[in-house]
Amino acid sequence: MSLINRTRLDQKLADAGVDVVVAAAPENTYYLSGVFIRTQVSIRDRMAIVIWPLGDTPTFVVCNIEESLARHDGQIADVRTYVEYAQSPIAKAIEVLRERRLDRKRLGVELGYLPARAFAELQSALPNAPISGVDEVLESVRAVKTPEETRRIVEAFKRTEVAINDAWTASRLGDSEKTIADRMLFAMLDKGANGLRHMTLASGENTIFIHATPGARTLRAGDTVLTDVGAHFYGFSSDMARMGIVGTPTAERKAEYDRYREIYVKVLHFIRPGVRAADVYAFTRAEYERAGFPMTMPHVGHSLTRMGGHENPMLHPGNEQMLEPGMLLAVEPGYTPRADQRYHIEDLVEVTSNGAKIHTNWQSTERMIEFAS
Amino acid sequence: MSLINRTRLDQKLADAGVDVVVAAAPENTYYLSGVFIRTQVSIRDRMAIVIWPLGDTPTFVVCNIEESLARHDGQIADVRTYVEYAQSPIAKAIEVLRERRLDRKRLGVELGYLPARAFAELQSALPNAPISGVDEVLESVRAVKTPEETRRIVEAFKRTEVAINDAWTASRLGDSEKTIADRMLFAMLDKGANGLRHMTLASGENTIFIHATPGARTLRAGDTVLTDVGAHFYGFSSDMARMGIVGTPTAERKAEYDRYREIYVKVLHFIRPGVRAADVYAFTRAEYERAGFPMTMPHVGHSLTRMGGHENPMLHPGNEQMLEPGMLLAVEPGYTPRADQRYHIEDLVEVTSNGAKIHTNWQSTERMIEFAS
Repeated sequence: MSLINRTRLDQKLADAGVDVVVAAAPENTYYLSGVFIRTQVSIRDRMAIVIWPLGDTPTFVVCNIEESLARHDGQIADVRTYVEYAQSPIAKAIEVLRERRLDRKRLGVELGYLPARAFAELQSALPNAPISGVDEVLESVRAVKTPEETRRIVEAFKRTEVAINDAWTASRLGDSEKTIADRMLFAMLDKGANGLRHMTLASGENTIFIHATPGARTLRAGDTVLTDVGAHFYGFSSDMARMGIVGTPTAERKAEYDRYREIYVKVLHFIRPGVRAADVYAFTRAEYERAGFPMTMPHVGHSLTRMGGHENPMLHPGNEQMLEPGMLLAVEPGYTPRADQRYHIEDLVEVTSNGAKIHTNWQSTERMIEFAS
Repeated sequence: MSLINRTRLDQKLADAGVDVVVAAAPENTYYLSGVFIRTQVSIRDRMAIVIWPLGDTPTFVVCNIEESLARHDGQIADVRTYVEYAQSPIAKAIEVLRERRLDRKRLGVELGYLPARAFAELQSALPNAPISGVDEVLESVRAVKTPEETRRIVEAFKRTEVAINDAWTASRLGDSEKTIADRMLFAMLDKGANGLRHMTLASGENTIFIHATPGARTLRAGDTVLTDVGAHFYGFSSDMARMGIVGTPTAERKAEYDRYREIYVKVLHFIRPGVRAADVYAFTRAEYERAGFPMTMPHVGHSLTRMGGHENPMLHPGNEQMLEPGMLLAVEPGYTPRADQRYHIEDLVEVTSNGAKIHTNWQSTERMIEFAS
């Protein structure tokens, strides 16, 4: 039931020449500690810091307000607290590093997260500790999921998929985007979600706004409907997209969707070990070029942190990362044929030694879901 | 209908000796541009940057994926885009600064937000631009709300309060925390919310977890119930706390609550212009000491960013900031008399020239809300 790939972590840290990780980014502190501290995201200065010496026990530095949560939910026994405003979280971390005689070791910090001020505080207090960026190392550890992580993420996606179907079946011509979005959220909560990751629901010409907030626009005959939605299921998150149509699609609309989906399905099945992330992008681009589709996407998919953030392997043209068994990808090439119409589907694909294992029901997207009119 | 205090902004920037703001923190880019780009939070590297030269027109740098949203929702006409992974957002901002001949001006950046890597990129590309922290300056601008901002925030709180009451009235002995929390969320959505800020709902001994996730625990006779909840209402957010009891409280429980609330109400009414944030904390501490209450809170209240994050004036002992008319505070001293019981209420207070104007229905907290048993 492990949720952390410890062997891979130790190996990658050793390879990178890092003696001690000082992690403050939510995705890493959550991964390393097992505790999701929500205020770490919503109240940025209330930092939580995991100090992880290679081959030794970790220490968890949290605001005293979050101590009970850290001790209750977490797997790190050594929890230290600071009082916010009275002491900076970095000062507390420095105190721990000194006490544990780690203040001359090679430290790895997240240069892509740690605010400039906090970094300067750390650097000036520890002049004898070589500090390097550990962002990519930790990301590559998290990228390969443990079987238990995979099980929980797959479960989150499957429940989300059922929720979309339930909510859409209950919706029809004349309903507002917001009404349908609320139904979807409620259906996800009913299936066990405990929070929303993101909710996009757009109809008609609104489909071109990639992150449209569901609004007052009501469904009209012939509208396409697009949702890109994700929820949190007690620490694991979903992120998937589906398309619908109000009534029966015109032949033209159907042909447009079919051409898009044909390529989409090829991309899903292109995923396999030994292929680089950039190859998936290149494959998609080649297919789009052949079909005469504009290729406007900077990426065609991504992995997910536990809280649902995008993470590597990002499927973008500059990413040379090799796909490995155990990686999970939300694959989502989109298609915008006109200034008032976009198509977009997203499924969950696991990289296995046998190739792509698609956990969501991709077969069901053969046709757009029909809203009653 | 202004949502930005431009006179105050210009004055504070001039006072601070900042020629150009380079803002990347979501609360500031949202404030300055009028656009909330959700992925800026969920996908950290997809930065959005507002370049705001004092006394000149601003430029908005966004990922091309978010261009349609930025143009549609925003008040900045000059939108520039970068393609993620192909170009860094900071490189694009540097390009704009050079083009607009701002690359030798005094730049203000958020040292408490900008990641160390991005800061280093900016600094090394612009060796002739003196860079200073502008975090506190922008925070002090945002702290005084425009009448339209106040109207919308008050509306968000009032709707949230109605939602709590509706959901709790529909709940009873035997319901799980999660069931009640889902009802609350649905009631907020029904009142016009478009997303959840945070949801804490705890019963019985769970009340001691300050940010407890609502779980399977069911309401038992005599339980206290505590919620601390907030939702997003199209760009403005709520954050309030209420207490309930399953059945009729025992005399002991009632006395405990009454003693706490008596102090709580005094703190609400202590808020007025000319008082420092630290004074509110000190007043609370003095009252707690007189009552023999433990004073464990690092702060007793806070203002809110548009998306609902905590912001100054934070009511903590080190904050010398003077309260001014137009500031809004979520005031929330809590009380933990035992290891299995916490009390907590939170109301919205506006600082006016006549003193505290409490916008939420604080009178209703005279008694804990009774759940049917």
